[in-house]
Amino acid sequence: MINAQDLLTTAYDEAMLGLREGGIPIGAALFDSAGNLLGRGHNRRVQNDDPSVHAETDAFRNAGRRRDYRDTIMVTTLSPCWYCSGLVRQFGIGAVIVGESRTFTGGHDWLAAHGVSITVLDDPACVDMMTRFIAERPELWNEDIGVAE
Amino acid sequence: MINAQDLLTTAYDEAMLGLREGGIPIGAALFDSAGNLLGRGHNRRVQNDDPSVHAETDAFRNAGRRRDYRDTIMVTTLSPCWYCSGLVRQFGIGAVIVGESRTFTGGHDWLAAHGVSITVLDDPACVDMMTRFIAERPELWNEDIGVAE
Repeated sequence: MINAQDLLTTAYDEAMLGLREGGIPIGAALFDSAGNLLGRGHNRRVQNDDPSVHAETDAFRNAGRRRDYRDTIMVTTLSPCWYCSGLVRQFGIGAVIVGESRTFTGGHDWLAAHGVSITVLDDPACVDMMTRFIAERPELWNEDIGVAE
Repeated sequence: MINAQDLLTTAYDEAMLGLREGGIPIGAALFDSAGNLLGRGHNRRVQNDDPSVHAETDAFRNAGRRRDYRDTIMVTTLSPCWYCSGLVRQFGIGAVIVGESRTFTGGHDWLAAHGVSITVLDDPACVDMMTRFIAERPELWNEDIGVAE
């Protein structure tokens, strides 16, 4: 039996890796329905100077090319933004496990309305990580979600 | 005065470049409101073996990090899929010019409902390019939009 909190650990570790690199601490991982890891990654805006690599995009990319995502689970430390929610919808990823949606809420309700299985864990460690980051680097956080000054 | 058809030329040239590389012929470009090119790119699934780089993502990436997208125009040869539509919505890109939406329709109506200025050109050259490609490489096309077998 797959435990959502166990899967979140991989995404959380990715977020912490990103933080140590000086980046935005959001991590993600793509698993198959048996819980096998397909790809993991984290936000790379700062590290790669690349605005297009959100955590979910990085995990999706690192999972390589696939013909069918219906059986896959995207795990992310933070509620997926519209960009990453669009990724989930377009590729038909079957399930999303969200670490927390207190500090930011993107499109996970929209995904649920389109048949994606959504689990929000409200994980205290994820909440704490993003709360601290947003307080310390508000301009970088706003840049990452397209909030203009 | 900015001419949408002129801007489309850059996206179309990118799509043709992708086709010559053996890739999926979808191109895009990001401009500012004065018509200055900020970034251009094309689908790189085949070339980079990377499922995460749709044309709009590539153009967005190549435009570099920005704090404000409200004044920008995303031009794409094909109606943006949900992934690319989510990109436009999250980053607040103000306008999208679509080459055609006959061969595929993604989220451009959804974007219009959320205040994005949408122009669909129904360009015959774009329609012809994608019609041929889809007929010749249906499996690759379906892979790129997440249509499982």
